[in-house]
Amino acid sequence: MKKLSCLDRPIVFDSVANINFNKHLANGEKAKKLVLLDENTHQHCWPLLAANPFFEGAELIELPAGELSKTLDYCAPVWQSLTEMSFTRSDILIAVGGGVLTDLGGFIASSYKRGMRFMSIPTSLLGMVDASIGGKTGIDFLEYKNQLGAFYLPELIAVDAQFLETLPDEEVLNGMAEMLKHGLLADKSHAEGIGKLLLEKKAPNLEQIAHSMKIKIDVVEQDPKEAGVRKLLNLGHTIGHAIEKYWLTRDLYPHGFAVAQGLKLEARLANKLNLLNQEDLNQIEEWTNAFPLREVPQDAMQEILEAINNDKKNKNQDWLFSLPVAIGKSEYDIKVNRELVEEVLREESTKR
Amino acid sequence: MKKLSCLDRPIVFDSVANINFNKHLANGEKAKKLVLLDENTHQHCWPLLAANPFFEGAELIELPAGELSKTLDYCAPVWQSLTEMSFTRSDILIAVGGGVLTDLGGFIASSYKRGMRFMSIPTSLLGMVDASIGGKTGIDFLEYKNQLGAFYLPELIAVDAQFLETLPDEEVLNGMAEMLKHGLLADKSHAEGIGKLLLEKKAPNLEQIAHSMKIKIDVVEQDPKEAGVRKLLNLGHTIGHAIEKYWLTRDLYPHGFAVAQGLKLEARLANKLNLLNQEDLNQIEEWTNAFPLREVPQDAMQEILEAINNDKKNKNQDWLFSLPVAIGKSEYDIKVNRELVEEVLREESTKR
Repeated sequence: MKKLSCLDRPIVFDSVANINFNKHLANGEKAKKLVLLDENTHQHCWPLLAANPFFEGAELIELPAGELSKTLDYCAPVWQSLTEMSFTRSDILIAVGGGVLTDLGGFIASSYKRGMRFMSIPTSLLGMVDASIGGKTGIDFLEYKNQLGAFYLPELIAVDAQFLETLPDEEVLNGMAEMLKHGLLADKSHAEGIGKLLLEKKAPNLEQIAHSMKIKIDVVEQDPKEAGVRKLLNLGHTIGHAIEKYWLTRDLYPHGFAVAQGLKLEARLANKLNLLNQEDLNQIEEWTNAFPLREVPQDAMQEILEAINNDKKNKNQDWLFSLPVAIGKSEYDIKVNRELVEEVLREESTKR
Repeated sequence: MKKLSCLDRPIVFDSVANINFNKHLANGEKAKKLVLLDENTHQHCWPLLAANPFFEGAELIELPAGELSKTLDYCAPVWQSLTEMSFTRSDILIAVGGGVLTDLGGFIASSYKRGMRFMSIPTSLLGMVDASIGGKTGIDFLEYKNQLGAFYLPELIAVDAQFLETLPDEEVLNGMAEMLKHGLLADKSHAEGIGKLLLEKKAPNLEQIAHSMKIKIDVVEQDPKEAGVRKLLNLGHTIGHAIEKYWLTRDLYPHGFAVAQGLKLEARLANKLNLLNQEDLNQIEEWTNAFPLREVPQDAMQEILEAINNDKKNKNQDWLFSLPVAIGKSEYDIKVNRELVEEVLREESTKR
């Protein structure tokens, strides 16, 4: 496996039982460690980590699995534990889990004493190819996804492919939406490779995972604070997040599936704006329909439009979208009006 | 008044009614504005700001004055208002107040959608010479001062000397402790100038205020994230914060007075360690005794020592202090053992 890093922070691919963490984390042996887990990663991943002497004496905190943990209510007890155990900025918080846990852990670390050391160990495909890369941390607030957060980079990201073997199929599919997104926005052959896997119901290999991370890293390194080109990574997310938010308090819709639906609807938007040709749209629809997409309920329309209006990607009063202009190419800051978004949502509100 | 900036963010000295804010804040006229105030600054400072067309249509939120507002409980409703009013990252939060309000406002802005625009208008002497400079934002948590926070720079700091005229004498004295600290750590003649004012019970002029800011800026710009030399600014604060924390839930002790007491006790520590000569110690004691210092109650000792143990400036297991080694010169990361700190606290526990 070739070496990867993001903004000079290394990404190590190896079995977590074998990684020499002290090689990558200066004075790691002297630092106290707090490991954040959820019930699944505690059961399936922690035994592998515990075999590594680096984690000897580490404190553990287990949070409930799932998006509902990603709130201030779950930050406060962790900050309290860190305080009561006299953790300093030189001590290390380690998040072991999917995107929810690494986003949450990153925000907790970024805010504790204005920033303590942080290591990310993504255990889901989604966490590996997306959430752990690029320093976006965050929690949900008032049901808005990632409404609070910080840009904060982990010192080290450790990727252990063994963790993927413990994932249910649905979780693998969840991560493949972001891999498809990376292909759609910047790399046609990657999009075609992932599209093929989707149609054949197969999982990606480690080479494809690393390549997908690399696409994201290249974008992030051009624009760490999302002043411009990084907005391309929001492809599928402006509509996807709003749909995900709608379901958040009803019947959780996995992030990747909502993003796949966002990719499809935003491709339709691009087609209606004459930015994307019909052939490419058809191809994108074929791939995204491989996900178990839900129809958009009629009565959800206003709530979804309201959520888009509040979306962080919209500057001042305009609705600005990142949209595909071909398979493998996308553009950002494209003005889209509310009526057009409503139109594609309505098309999705009757069974396909 | 000569021009100042900190880490390339301008500091403007002028009447807030006259400042052309749009000159300094790109697209400021298009941005929505939320102004955070407390009851005092709402009454005394807002009328001056409201005369400036820049603030036309701005939303206002008034918080209770004082340190007790600096908690998560006061962040949440502001984040909620920002969300409900659909503020984006391009919109601007403006904090108008003392250090409490600019620290709190900075943290709220840093975390909202991973960082919205922020302007600081310090209205107290303490806010001007210290809190507004250098990007340290923060809130108190579990009674620990600034336990949560972020490094986040305001785009602009506006300093209007008119605001100082509305301050009670105690508030001016509160700010002078930080000015004295700046002199003690890096500039003997500044220390002597402020010491003289303290003994004569006089207020500083605008020249002295700007000079004090400049000393802090020079240190911050050498080390924005407090990896090394910036720790010098903690002079007086390791003991000062712990004493302030003790009083927080009893009978509020103004920050500056606690810092003045910290400067005195840390000078005594330095003297006991043979780092500071007796003559300089006597001089520092004369100046710091011009503040209305409280004796340290016998039963506060353990609580204060515990707070020092939890202090953010202590790396791993050592107690590391910044200490004066002469008037105008200080050093950081000096190991101090608990017994010596207890000794100087005991000396302060009987009436001077």
